Amino acid sequence: MFPKGFILNGLRCGIKPSSKKEDIAIFYSALPASAAGVFTANLVKAAPVLVGMKQLKASRGSACAIIANSGCANACTGERGISDAEFSCAMTAELLGCKKQEVLVASTGVIGQFLPMPEVTRGITALSSRVLQGKTDEKAAVRAIMTTDTKPKTAQASFNIGGKKITVWGTVKGSGMIHPEVRTASVLHATMLGFILTDAAISPKLLEKVLFQSCDKSFNCVSVDGDTSTNDTVYALANGAAGAVAISGGTALLAFTKAMDAVCLSLAKQIAADGEGATRLVEILVKGAKNIQSARKIGATIATSPLVKTAIFGNDANWGRILAAAGRAGISFNPLKTDICIGGLPVFVKGAPVKFSEAKAKHILKKKEVKIMIDLHGGAGFASYYTCDLSFDYIKINASYRS
Amino acid sequence: MFPKGFILNGLRCGIKPSSKKEDIAIFYSALPASAAGVFTANLVKAAPVLVGMKQLKASRGSACAIIANSGCANACTGERGISDAEFSCAMTAELLGCKKQEVLVASTGVIGQFLPMPEVTRGITALSSRVLQGKTDEKAAVRAIMTTDTKPKTAQASFNIGGKKITVWGTVKGSGMIHPEVRTASVLHATMLGFILTDAAISPKLLEKVLFQSCDKSFNCVSVDGDTSTNDTVYALANGAAGAVAISGGTALLAFTKAMDAVCLSLAKQIAADGEGATRLVEILVKGAKNIQSARKIGATIATSPLVKTAIFGNDANWGRILAAAGRAGISFNPLKTDICIGGLPVFVKGAPVKFSEAKAKHILKKKEVKIMIDLHGGAGFASYYTCDLSFDYIKINASYRS
Repeated sequence: MFPKGFILNGLRCGIKPSSKKEDIAIFYSALPASAAGVFTANLVKAAPVLVGMKQLKASRGSACAIIANSGCANACTGERGISDAEFSCAMTAELLGCKKQEVLVASTGVIGQFLPMPEVTRGITALSSRVLQGKTDEKAAVRAIMTTDTKPKTAQASFNIGGKKITVWGTVKGSGMIHPEVRTASVLHATMLGFILTDAAISPKLLEKVLFQSCDKSFNCVSVDGDTSTNDTVYALANGAAGAVAISGGTALLAFTKAMDAVCLSLAKQIAADGEGATRLVEILVKGAKNIQSARKIGATIATSPLVKTAIFGNDANWGRILAAAGRAGISFNPLKTDICIGGLPVFVKGAPVKFSEAKAKHILKKKEVKIMIDLHGGAGFASYYTCDLSFDYIKINASYRS
Repeated sequence: MFPKGFILNGLRCGIKPSSKKEDIAIFYSALPASAAGVFTANLVKAAPVLVGMKQLKASRGSACAIIANSGCANACTGERGISDAEFSCAMTAELLGCKKQEVLVASTGVIGQFLPMPEVTRGITALSSRVLQGKTDEKAAVRAIMTTDTKPKTAQASFNIGGKKITVWGTVKGSGMIHPEVRTASVLHATMLGFILTDAAISPKLLEKVLFQSCDKSFNCVSVDGDTSTNDTVYALANGAAGAVAISGGTALLAFTKAMDAVCLSLAKQIAADGEGATRLVEILVKGAKNIQSARKIGATIATSPLVKTAIFGNDANWGRILAAAGRAGISFNPLKTDICIGGLPVFVKGAPVKFSEAKAKHILKKKEVKIMIDLHGGAGFASYYTCDLSFDYIKINASYRS
């Protein structure tokens, strides 16, 4: 199940000499596609983020390709970085015969290093040639954007419009420097690159709206380490190749939104489950808050607490750390009304500790997926937030990432 | 060098059956002392915090003793917790012959467990008896409040008023659940217990003012793990036993403030250096911010970044993570004007990477104290923030703390 009219490929051009993995990918649509993007809210934005934003504006939301690399983030690289990202777009457009503003760009990897342009140039040349020959390799493209990810991450969903099958497919990379915080539309906080391809027909403006709303409920509700990247980018391309009528509202828009939501949420949970060093996917469900924003703020604070995350790694039902984290979220609630359950097991009820079986708690915490529920009994607001535990491997990975 | 008129002692009453260390301490002043306290801003406040605040209010800032325990935080323990803390104060007052509102209380340890009152009662009885016999043991008192601390932490400073020597002495415990954030006067964010004793004469009101200002510049500028505790408390007792005139302003107040600042800053740095699993004391100096608040916010964000902290543990001059953390602090600055130095070595100048000797950087990062300077060139605001690196031992300590 893959959307029609796209060609994907990836290969190794040598951006990171020590790696044998693919490091550059192309996502191409033969038909001109509606394009939308959401980007990091970090004040320090990498060159590909700035250039990607500019391209979307210049093309008024039209694109034929995305060129993406791993191994080098092209962040904090000043004017030269901007020029390198612009050249990558222009060169890809030239080789593929599309307008220069119709190529989007994304990078991930080490901050503060320049892109090795001879390698990138070689990569773009080879990828363009494969595209022109119609050679697609979804798996190679997905692998090419991975950094510390241990697993490729993809998701898809489909629905029908007037008998025509529409598919939404997405891939994402992201394992560390992952942390969301919603501020304004078109702003995304989560260290990741995501590419969503669909053969639906939809205007760029509506596509952006749906994309942002889906990202806000998914990628913006994931944290691995609380660190928001300089390079976060999610692009969506909609090329209309399914041949259905354009989506503009009604049930078609609902179905499209539902598919986009499903793809983004699946990818977001895959990020949390594959967080650097993660041994567990953790869902923090906050209920009974004044509103969604309050619920999410408390969820985010619990999800980023190193003490909560190490306790989960150690299979320790240390609910005091959960409540202490909630208490420092800056959100008003009544601790004396609060309940906490770990995997359905009540550990704190109406503001007081309850006796529970430590053996049962350990058993629950050892599962691959752990759900923590905190009910504030103070309103109808609720939100789920996804994270992982904090293990020895997180330290191992990050104490030597650059070298 | 110890302030006159205080008796300190500590012993093991068995709060944590598995430990052989002292677990309960008393800090006693024979003369009625001016008393002041600053407390956690966590919404979830432990019983001893609530009771301590109440006592200070009831006594109008007068105290004869502080009773403090480790091994059990008496937090999230509902009404029973409050009653246990109140009983501890009342019993101590009874045995020492002072007013029941003149005993302050503090606890640290596991959240969500009730204080074992038979043990605590035995401890208070034995400590009171030692106090009445005039038996002082500073070291035992200091050890009794330690939890995951690997080192006892004390500091002192002295000055003269009219030929009389005044001493300010302090001890602090704190290694994990350490994170500051200033909001309002009399609110302290840093997981710690601190006790400051001085033989100066000063009104409770002025003592509180000086104490908060000193804490704000010291404990509120320290983070180990970003987790603010439910139990943070700093008490100061000033008993006037030095025999000097009361401090009310002028050079005497300046000298007292300076001594308090020195004691608190020394204790704060000792907390960071002895953070759970720490191998390095890290100072983040933020310069060129619009104001002190902005500088401190950026310092706090860098200091709590797991990616920055693991890089330091790995001796990796990964300055991109420092800049990325600054960029997500929510403070406006111009990355293109920004400089970063690691231990005096420029690694990022005017928004662009500079070549530097990796060997030299590694050498700098391997030192016991690492200073990171980030200059935003956007104003006169500056602040230092203290933290430690994030090591395997942090995970080891916290994945099994409760059990």
